[in-house]
Amino acid sequence: MTYCVGIRLEAGLVFLSDSRTNAGLDQISTYRKMMIYERPGDRFMVMLSAGNLSISQSVREILQVEKLDNGDEEPLTIWNARSMFDATRVLGAAVRRVYQQDGPSLKAAGVDFNTSMIFGGQIRGEAMRMFLVYSAGNFIEATRETCFFQIGESKYGKPILDRVLTPSTPLDEAAKCALVSMDSTLKSNLSVGLPLDLMVYRAGALSSGDHVCIDEQNPYFRMIRSTWGQRLREVFESIDDPRWDGGDTAHPLLSRHSRYEPMRKITHPGERIV
Amino acid sequence: MTYCVGIRLEAGLVFLSDSRTNAGLDQISTYRKMMIYERPGDRFMVMLSAGNLSISQSVREILQVEKLDNGDEEPLTIWNARSMFDATRVLGAAVRRVYQQDGPSLKAAGVDFNTSMIFGGQIRGEAMRMFLVYSAGNFIEATRETCFFQIGESKYGKPILDRVLTPSTPLDEAAKCALVSMDSTLKSNLSVGLPLDLMVYRAGALSSGDHVCIDEQNPYFRMIRSTWGQRLREVFESIDDPRWDGGDTAHPLLSRHSRYEPMRKITHPGERIV
Repeated sequence: MTYCVGIRLEAGLVFLSDSRTNAGLDQISTYRKMMIYERPGDRFMVMLSAGNLSISQSVREILQVEKLDNGDEEPLTIWNARSMFDATRVLGAAVRRVYQQDGPSLKAAGVDFNTSMIFGGQIRGEAMRMFLVYSAGNFIEATRETCFFQIGESKYGKPILDRVLTPSTPLDEAAKCALVSMDSTLKSNLSVGLPLDLMVYRAGALSSGDHVCIDEQNPYFRMIRSTWGQRLREVFESIDDPRWDGGDTAHPLLSRHSRYEPMRKITHPGERIV
Repeated sequence: MTYCVGIRLEAGLVFLSDSRTNAGLDQISTYRKMMIYERPGDRFMVMLSAGNLSISQSVREILQVEKLDNGDEEPLTIWNARSMFDATRVLGAAVRRVYQQDGPSLKAAGVDFNTSMIFGGQIRGEAMRMFLVYSAGNFIEATRETCFFQIGESKYGKPILDRVLTPSTPLDEAAKCALVSMDSTLKSNLSVGLPLDLMVYRAGALSSGDHVCIDEQNPYFRMIRSTWGQRLREVFESIDDPRWDGGDTAHPLLSRHSRYEPMRKITHPGERIV
């Protein structure tokens, strides 16, 4: 499986990917899932990929040479597109080309055409943008209201993103949030694994920002892994336990104002449930 | 959808269920998913159900009258079973009976035979036990190593259970943990909803323990919902942000000891990815 997250903030973009792939549970490998496309001063783009590895590797290869018909003008590529929207159309076309090539054979073998990508960056003259590309080659864009995308095993790591991220979150705080989200995912799903690729892009830079590959020895991520779980337990313990006796508490568990009665008990054989 | 959790501790059992059902996104209803079977002094059992509502309602109805062949002895029912294992076999038989009745028609209509149940309790002369019953009527039992079961939308709420629960967790703390887990699930999945049924059973009681139906007005759950999110953000803020400059920090993000290099950048059209 995979877990990748992309975040679009006012201050920049954050990308984080794991590197585990598996074919069944007994065939685990390490493949990195972040690709960086850069022409300094002109454009900077990052792609994170999830799903069937043969599909995403083919998409990556084809994306480099994909040309999308552009009417009377020169065919569109990711290198000459004037907007991230157009660059993402090229990526969608690459996905569709792989589908044409491999889709029928995969279907015959009973394998889903399963792939998804987060694609974000900035092209000179335009603001930063981030897209989520589906296996049909269609895509959606991150907005102020929904400023992050996840692909792969997204659920374990979503609550912390939901609670922390807003468009004005500082970049380093968002990177920390992505790493905490990854930590929760690593803890709950064995098919997500280290090393991680973390890229932080600062708005307007038009070239790579801070970038690191995080393995088991990384001091910062080790600190996150030990500290987060411990503090979470401390917070948990700091919250009052429920009081059933309705005693001296500002937050009684048994309230007189419930609209609902407790579930009725079934107390003998054949009693009907109504 | 549904979220239910059952926890087996040394001190007793905790059961928590939501009450939302949906047929598509535009047809939302409230059905409570906890059933309590009790003969005080002899047996106490709770069933939580998830999956297709028509199946789980049928299982509940049939469970009341289901008789499982027991050789030369009187047929087994949930009321005469001498062990929770046997009572769970009766539940499995009820699931299989519903499958016989409805399975072929559901299949013809393209509907999965999708149901699962948490079934736990205590029968006089035996320790407390808890089982997870699958749609084929087979089941597994909670152990000291894996002391809780979840059914329905389990992922959002799993990290806090993983981090907090052990067999020696006190009952009230486990109830609080289940409610925090439910809060995370409610926040991330609209198809899980209030009211909640919470039942706490104390070991050896052989009759219902503390039991409450929690709606939007419940003071304790309102406190959990506001406090947990806020404290989580405070903890998050209390952890150092990553430092890219490698400056004065005990936990540098850029380590010299990484086994892996940063991802190579693709910097011009047609460059090959190796």
